[in-house]
Amino acid sequence: MTPEEAQAALAACREQIDDVDRRLVALINERVRVVEQIGQIKQSAALNVYEPNRERAVLDNVASANAGPLPPDSAVRIFERIMDEMRTIQRNRMLSEEK
Amino acid sequence: MTPEEAQAALAACREQIDDVDRRLVALINERVRVVEQIGQIKQSAALNVYEPNRERAVLDNVASANAGPLPPDSAVRIFERIMDEMRTIQRNRMLSEEK
Repeated sequence: MTPEEAQAALAACREQIDDVDRRLVALINERVRVVEQIGQIKQSAALNVYEPNRERAVLDNVASANAGPLPPDSAVRIFERIMDEMRTIQRNRMLSEEK
Repeated sequence: MTPEEAQAALAACREQIDDVDRRLVALINERVRVVEQIGQIKQSAALNVYEPNRERAVLDNVASANAGPLPPDSAVRIFERIMDEMRTIQRNRMLSEEK
């Protein structure tokens, strides 16, 4: 592969990644909207916001769905980050509603 | 909403989240496969593996694609985690090839 060919191949790969990332952003936003619904249901029914068993179930679902090449421990760390951000979003929403 | 109605609504939301998460896992795996292609191209053309400008471009693409409700700083943290895991995967692949 010449350097020019390599650069062209890299550019094509990066376009693919940008496309994947845009779809990831759309899906994560879909997830935020469902988490916000969950927050409203819990609030109206005075249920606990934090349920550690549910987090285990989320990670189990992710592990079952993961056909690779993503290593299982990487999948756990990415989804722990996603769940952590969802908690922050929920917390900020509740704080702003209390004001 | 009765407690029973709330539980049923929560169960429906959780099924939606599990579905979103399975699609997220599939997309992240698609991303890993493209990143692995990039690694092979860079290796065959002896190009630099680490390019900080590209990371900026990834975050810019994510920010433009993010129509909300995901806050911009949450999006940055999630994609920094995803990129960090991709670097770990690449590094482990190169180490195992050197053996």
